[in-house]
Amino acid sequence: MNVVRDFSQRTVAVIGVGLMGGSLGLALQAKAGVRRVVGASRSRATLETALRLGAITEACDSLEDGVATADLVFVCTPVRDLVEHVRRAYAAAPRDSVITDVGSTKSALMASLTREQQATCIGGHPLCGSETAGVGNARVSLYDGATYFLTPGAHVRHDAFQMLYDIVAALGARPVVIDPAAHDRLMALVSHLPHVLANTLMALAGRREGGRDALTSAGPSFRDLTRIAGSNRRVWTDIFLENRTALLDALREYRAGLDEALAALEAADGERLGELIGRAAASRQRMLVESSLTPDELFRVVVHIPDRPGVLKEIMTALGDESINVEDLALHHMSAELGGSLTVYVLGDETRQRAAAIIAAHGYQVTTAKVVE
Amino acid sequence: MNVVRDFSQRTVAVIGVGLMGGSLGLALQAKAGVRRVVGASRSRATLETALRLGAITEACDSLEDGVATADLVFVCTPVRDLVEHVRRAYAAAPRDSVITDVGSTKSALMASLTREQQATCIGGHPLCGSETAGVGNARVSLYDGATYFLTPGAHVRHDAFQMLYDIVAALGARPVVIDPAAHDRLMALVSHLPHVLANTLMALAGRREGGRDALTSAGPSFRDLTRIAGSNRRVWTDIFLENRTALLDALREYRAGLDEALAALEAADGERLGELIGRAAASRQRMLVESSLTPDELFRVVVHIPDRPGVLKEIMTALGDESINVEDLALHHMSAELGGSLTVYVLGDETRQRAAAIIAAHGYQVTTAKVVE
Repeated sequence: MNVVRDFSQRTVAVIGVGLMGGSLGLALQAKAGVRRVVGASRSRATLETALRLGAITEACDSLEDGVATADLVFVCTPVRDLVEHVRRAYAAAPRDSVITDVGSTKSALMASLTREQQATCIGGHPLCGSETAGVGNARVSLYDGATYFLTPGAHVRHDAFQMLYDIVAALGARPVVIDPAAHDRLMALVSHLPHVLANTLMALAGRREGGRDALTSAGPSFRDLTRIAGSNRRVWTDIFLENRTALLDALREYRAGLDEALAALEAADGERLGELIGRAAASRQRMLVESSLTPDELFRVVVHIPDRPGVLKEIMTALGDESINVEDLALHHMSAELGGSLTVYVLGDETRQRAAAIIAAHGYQVTTAKVVE
Repeated sequence: MNVVRDFSQRTVAVIGVGLMGGSLGLALQAKAGVRRVVGASRSRATLETALRLGAITEACDSLEDGVATADLVFVCTPVRDLVEHVRRAYAAAPRDSVITDVGSTKSALMASLTREQQATCIGGHPLCGSETAGVGNARVSLYDGATYFLTPGAHVRHDAFQMLYDIVAALGARPVVIDPAAHDRLMALVSHLPHVLANTLMALAGRREGGRDALTSAGPSFRDLTRIAGSNRRVWTDIFLENRTALLDALREYRAGLDEALAALEAADGERLGELIGRAAASRQRMLVESSLTPDELFRVVVHIPDRPGVLKEIMTALGDESINVEDLALHHMSAELGGSLTVYVLGDETRQRAAAIIAAHGYQVTTAKVVE
């Protein structure tokens, strides 16, 4: 639905050329038509491998040299270095350059940005990855179909945001705009908490009898629950600590849920046990219905927006807070006087109505229409 | 490795002709060569469907009529009726008839049996099943490759046990002998606890924001952890209650593990968080190694056993208590004076040595050999 943009004249810098950065370099060239990808790394060997594999077209030893002529910068270094590397990239890159990252938590980065930095620095988090790390395992398809979270700040420049949004879509990923704190809460729930739960079950099984039977004999439920157990110790320790607050909330809420089940079982209360199963079934059913909607059900919600900071962020956050998933989005800027329009695409008539009501409640003019009649 | 037995002249009764019983009827005929399968159900409609689908060859309204001429009886009624139905089948069937069930917990049934009943009543639990219930969904392949737990009592008759063991293998399932309490603890760990954990996570997700995103956007970990959430409310309430003691133990132990993770996260203790991940990784690694052993590594452990009750149970339980998985087993009876031999097959040289040591420590003569040299 977006206008196809031409990225062939853009220079993209990739800071940190591992699996994520290397795959980005391959996909930027193969899918987005980018001709110049500058890779920066402190490791000469990594740069040579990246050049040999065609993941980058030029190599630099320093972040500052790497971003010097970049229109767009992807910071792909480890989570704990992101804030510092985004700040340095912003300082060294040309004034209009768009800076983004691929880190798995977003609140700390976004909180670190000044109002000026927010204009062109936009957080990102593609939901992909692999058991295997390193540029040697980079592949052009890594981002295919992956959800790619974007966390624009209140003062984001609309053209900067649109460029990043379009290039992410061109990579084959599905851009999803989300508030950074909501992103971190969501990740705590759907990724970090599951890892803690899986690790705890696996460790328990290790202390119990029936080791071989537990994995080989015993149906799919144990395998499902422990498939992600024991994932990379260093990476996951960093992620747990980086998203500590949201993960603590999720863990405490989870433990309270477990205590309910425990109390029902202690009391041999079949009715209560049944209710807890029923609650899970209802929740699962609702999610399945929501996830089974198809493009036939796509609606366009068009909002007239004034040309002032914070509007995009305000609307996207309001929708996100009400669990409204935006399938796609387009921004049309007219002028400082006339403002512009924001078009968001949502699935399902019920979602269309809720989205329109939420946006109207924030004081914006909104119209909606079915995309395919 | 077992002698192929001829079951064509045996009459098998199936009490309760749903998905499990109906599939048994189909497989008994197609795979074990049984010609006469008598189905019993209180529902005329069920019996007619079962006859029409060829799952049974004869139909009876009552359990007592159904088992009257049976050499082997499978009780496939709901968990809460099993004790009563096994007792009635034992009373009404011919004296040498072997009675078994397919219930998902085993301690209560085995504890209900008298010494006399234990001779020919042997608990069973095939690890299969389906989202879809009812004889209309019965299929000949349901038991293919499934682990099929057998829980012989201390006073089991060796010929009765061997017959059941052989027919389970003939169905295409993998018979695994286990102590009933160990079975229920194992099931609590690998099936019932995972269901509680999945239900709790799904209910938590339902209360949180990002419903659609949680299931569709968010990587494989959430989907893995919630695939079994909200399973059949009535069936699972019964299973939780039936295995209440073992499940309470597992839940409490799990919660203690979760509290460790919570404490490490509260203290922002990266080292401790890393240790917890490492513990899960080690446990997972050990299980993967154990499950990757192949028939090349198969060893025969032969035990001379006196002809007195409890020997089979004693040896199998001793092995089970030490997490030794028995891949196959054969009993050879010589006479009341000479006794006989029990051959168990285990995977891996380390397991062979441990098995031999355990059996020797119980005072039995034991020899071992590699099956394929």
